[in-house]
Amino acid sequence: MSDVLAVDNFDEKIEYLKKTIKSIPDYPKPGILFRDITSLCIDKKAFALCIDVLYDLFKDKNIDKVVSAEARGFVFGAPLAARLGAGFVMVRKPGKLPRETIKEDYDLEYGHNSLHMHKDSIEKGDRVLVLDDLLATGGTIGAIIKLIRSLGGDIYKAAFIIELEDLGGREIISKTYNVETTSLITFPGH
Amino acid sequence: MSDVLAVDNFDEKIEYLKKTIKSIPDYPKPGILFRDITSLCIDKKAFALCIDVLYDLFKDKNIDKVVSAEARGFVFGAPLAARLGAGFVMVRKPGKLPRETIKEDYDLEYGHNSLHMHKDSIEKGDRVLVLDDLLATGGTIGAIIKLIRSLGGDIYKAAFIIELEDLGGREIISKTYNVETTSLITFPGH
Repeated sequence: MSDVLAVDNFDEKIEYLKKTIKSIPDYPKPGILFRDITSLCIDKKAFALCIDVLYDLFKDKNIDKVVSAEARGFVFGAPLAARLGAGFVMVRKPGKLPRETIKEDYDLEYGHNSLHMHKDSIEKGDRVLVLDDLLATGGTIGAIIKLIRSLGGDIYKAAFIIELEDLGGREIISKTYNVETTSLITFPGH
Repeated sequence: MSDVLAVDNFDEKIEYLKKTIKSIPDYPKPGILFRDITSLCIDKKAFALCIDVLYDLFKDKNIDKVVSAEARGFVFGAPLAARLGAGFVMVRKPGKLPRETIKEDYDLEYGHNSLHMHKDSIEKGDRVLVLDDLLATGGTIGAIIKLIRSLGGDIYKAAFIIELEDLGGREIISKTYNVETTSLITFPGH
């Protein structure tokens, strides 16, 4: 199989996945075009294909842990972790994790929130893949990166199913945290 | 391979998984012994094994959709759906799903809440496996069963990673909804 064929094939898979994502105008508020990933998940062919594509991208990268934030991040991070034979780490909102945690505050459009991770979920030197469903402005991912690094984890990459390109998240992750981004499906922005 | 050996092997796998679950006394309140499944997930061997065991149980059952409730349910339901080649359906709390939903109210210890599902997530006649991390009193599962049936789904079974046996959830699901339960790991109760 030639490299060109392999690339074509990849692009066709991504095109197939992209078509399963429904776009909802004015959700959650006027002017926002919401990209709904639940329609990819209920399509059995698309969901298995999506996890296959992720596995192909990261299978030889010696990933020790996949880290995802609740709740949609779990839908992609957990299948990839199980397939890679990596541990799966849940990043959660306050009050959801029962043992000793570390936390990071992050800004929302109005106010702020915090993300939590169990202190024993990353070991020093663990090679970590951050996986979330959506990259927009990168605020959540910044907090996740700080959590992982504060426990001594070595971040291989941040990966996303959907990237909203015009919102600048990729640049922020690269410049502020020196972490490279891989996204499967791109849309311009809101 | 004899049947006895197969059973022994299964029991050994379950015993291995059970040992990875941490028990936290007096969480979230005095008198409750909380079984923490996050410690199974960060153990790469245990997490992959858990999904393997689920896959072996349900691989020949012609499951069209796996349905799980946020957030911990997603961690096991999504990997199993991708592995089975089934669609994955998210049951979520109010205000989290962008398209037309159906909802079911259910009782909590104090007050009540509702669970939502996209109206197009189950097709009439779909063979559905309900998968959640924990079976306690069965309240959440009852609501999920009603959601699936109101869309015409045919429930094959309700499956759980952990069952707290003394809390009667299995009997309620069986008597009230005529749905059979499979659990990997059992503990007595709180």
